[in-house]
Amino acid sequence: MRKILIVGAGKSTAVLIDYLLKKSTSENLQLVIADLVLENATKIANGHPNAKPVALDIFNKEQRQAAVKDADIVISMLPARFHVEVAKDCVQFGKNMVTASYISEEMEQLDDEVKEKGLVFMNEIGVDPGIDHMSAMQVIDRIREEGGKMLLFESFTGGLVAPESDTNLWNYKFTWNPRNVVVAGQGGVAKFLQEGKFKYIPYNRLFRRTEFIEVKDYGKFEVYANRNSLKYKSIYGLDDVLTLYRGTIRRVGFSRAWNMFVQLGMTDDSYTMENSEEMSYRDFVNSFLPYSTTDSVELKVRHNLKIDQDDIMWDKLLELDIFNPDKKVGLKNATPAEILQKILLDKWHLAPEDKDMIVMYHKFGYEINGEKKQIDATMVNIGKDQQETAMARTVGLPVAIAALKILNGTITTPGVQLPITKEVYDPILKELAENGIVFREEEKEYMGYNPYGEVGS
Amino acid sequence: MRKILIVGAGKSTAVLIDYLLKKSTSENLQLVIADLVLENATKIANGHPNAKPVALDIFNKEQRQAAVKDADIVISMLPARFHVEVAKDCVQFGKNMVTASYISEEMEQLDDEVKEKGLVFMNEIGVDPGIDHMSAMQVIDRIREEGGKMLLFESFTGGLVAPESDTNLWNYKFTWNPRNVVVAGQGGVAKFLQEGKFKYIPYNRLFRRTEFIEVKDYGKFEVYANRNSLKYKSIYGLDDVLTLYRGTIRRVGFSRAWNMFVQLGMTDDSYTMENSEEMSYRDFVNSFLPYSTTDSVELKVRHNLKIDQDDIMWDKLLELDIFNPDKKVGLKNATPAEILQKILLDKWHLAPEDKDMIVMYHKFGYEINGEKKQIDATMVNIGKDQQETAMARTVGLPVAIAALKILNGTITTPGVQLPITKEVYDPILKELAENGIVFREEEKEYMGYNPYGEVGS
Repeated sequence: MRKILIVGAGKSTAVLIDYLLKKSTSENLQLVIADLVLENATKIANGHPNAKPVALDIFNKEQRQAAVKDADIVISMLPARFHVEVAKDCVQFGKNMVTASYISEEMEQLDDEVKEKGLVFMNEIGVDPGIDHMSAMQVIDRIREEGGKMLLFESFTGGLVAPESDTNLWNYKFTWNPRNVVVAGQGGVAKFLQEGKFKYIPYNRLFRRTEFIEVKDYGKFEVYANRNSLKYKSIYGLDDVLTLYRGTIRRVGFSRAWNMFVQLGMTDDSYTMENSEEMSYRDFVNSFLPYSTTDSVELKVRHNLKIDQDDIMWDKLLELDIFNPDKKVGLKNATPAEILQKILLDKWHLAPEDKDMIVMYHKFGYEINGEKKQIDATMVNIGKDQQETAMARTVGLPVAIAALKILNGTITTPGVQLPITKEVYDPILKELAENGIVFREEEKEYMGYNPYGEVGS
Repeated sequence: MRKILIVGAGKSTAVLIDYLLKKSTSENLQLVIADLVLENATKIANGHPNAKPVALDIFNKEQRQAAVKDADIVISMLPARFHVEVAKDCVQFGKNMVTASYISEEMEQLDDEVKEKGLVFMNEIGVDPGIDHMSAMQVIDRIREEGGKMLLFESFTGGLVAPESDTNLWNYKFTWNPRNVVVAGQGGVAKFLQEGKFKYIPYNRLFRRTEFIEVKDYGKFEVYANRNSLKYKSIYGLDDVLTLYRGTIRRVGFSRAWNMFVQLGMTDDSYTMENSEEMSYRDFVNSFLPYSTTDSVELKVRHNLKIDQDDIMWDKLLELDIFNPDKKVGLKNATPAEILQKILLDKWHLAPEDKDMIVMYHKFGYEINGEKKQIDATMVNIGKDQQETAMARTVGLPVAIAALKILNGTITTPGVQLPITKEVYDPILKELAENGIVFREEEKEYMGYNPYGEVGS
């Protein structure tokens, strides 16, 4: 039997493991499911005869190397910063490897060795990054093959709550790592290109410079800019493109309300607050407001943020119970971001019956035979339950499919790579479609940012 | 003759050296003025028989140690990060030392050795830090000696342009390092205490949460919060104080207008802009605005920042010529902050005939015999010319006075220290007053933040 070592049995691995176990008899696979906590691995192996749960401390070199040596291919579902140790072992023992994470500098540095040994290290093959790369490059390559020249590429992804579980005023629940949502947009200006102009949005304006999109059957969404869209110029070979913009999808109105937290300073993760443990939710809010003997915390918020009394933003704040003087933060030496996350989790946690939703939206603008055209491609995927979430599915399936195709010799080009070549995206997208992850393409009138041909600025 | 080694013959040293040279005959002093560029040292020595200009590369250990060894006391006017090398030599060769900079961690670590050798390393003895410490501690100690209990301490300093040279709409010119002004407030939240409540202001709100002060004969000013006021709790022994707030003084209206740059993202120093060299001032502004084919950069600024057409803020922008499409930035790989600095320098440089002004304002609130009282102390100092600026005077004089008093054995307590003890502040403040640097004290009704005794929040 061929051994697939899966390191890290976290939330996103259920679908991945399920896919591989279903194929384990016909494909002659044994899954070695390794986690620091044996119980996690055992739970996810679920007694399947072709699954072997093991305890593995990846910082124990001996243990780790023994496991890698014994495998035919390694899937690392560890947090991104831990991949490289496993990757070095894979190089040493000549094993292929798959991760869903962005290629780190350390990983990139292994490229020469990986190529020398003829190995495939496939990264960025989850949903975002992952399905975004594959679905975008398939269309971009097709446009080019037909003789088209890319003018515009915009790409948006969001992990959201499914319409049937959308029960709060924010139209949002945490479907993935809440921390990433709270600190989103920090740590660097948002850079992108519009009609040949470089544009920069600082963090404090990020949630006020949204764009709108509409997805058939799902209605209107908004998008705020991701940090560095410009790097996709070289990755996708879009050197001459005039517009290049990547963003994160939310329901309309989320960003305007989220901006209240940004403006008050509640998303800051760079310092710890005094007496955070004993602080009430109300104290927390008040820490960001001027001292007053005569005005309530509520009025100070309204005044500082200029919120009208009939503004829905106000109801969004009330819904979070953020002015409650009796609820204690209960976190020692916590940063504002950590406290905000706790407050939001009270209301935004995914209930057992809730379903999540992944939305992806690409716009491809191009010129062919002197004519400007546009294709919009959209994908919506809705989770089944708390195990088979849309997130676990759209991350786990491409990882599993890629691993099996590498193991079976369908994907062979060596190197530290991401899924942007036909060899990779064609077979994987085909199989994703068979599993219900489908893009709907639509030809649109090319709009660009200059529909009337006026001189822009 | 007793040798005083002065390392670094920069802008602020003219007054310092002038003071010491005037006393050089009566006090039997020889000044060794050392700079990387001999010409700088020669210029500032100005042919005085008791001044000896020398070229000194402080990274040349041999040169540096020889100079330190030969001196009786060392004044380092180098940028703060370079003090420590000189300081280590001073420890080795048993020399006292004076700097105007904040005590760095590395400097602090020398404390044990410095004490062991019975040396005095006096730091933070310029204007801010420096005169602020001395003038504050003198009053705080006096209040305590009289049996008072400190309730409130607020302290504000500003380097401004003198009223007679105040010729632009911003009421501001660069009188010191422009870079520090452009990035002011970045790199950490502003923390302070108001009536026992910890308060935090994020950068994006910093310039909208100003306080006002009035200085007799000089009118109204505004203050924005410094980064960490809380550290003065331990430094000044104000552990039980209810209000602790330090800030930077500007003329009223400056901060509101400055906030435009903050909001647009123009003060960001963390990334370089594409094509910065070829960019026009207008392009620079436009980089921070949404793309549009139909609207001017001007209208986009107004719309984004919600500036009414008759708002003085608008005139402030126009005065900077920031919408000029023909003026090129001309800086390679520049950050937004660097470009903004260049644009501002066009208009805010100190002209040869311009005078600068230092304003310092302390509020001391305290309780004595069951009564709440307040003392406000203010100091205004106006420069004479481009050599004897108020900044050079208020930084240079206390440094020079301290050095001479240490040399003469009036200040003797050993250790790495700052000027917060009577031994130091009493004689130095006395001599500063003789040189026209005088605080005017005024008893005020104690206002605190709770004058009506209401329950605050």
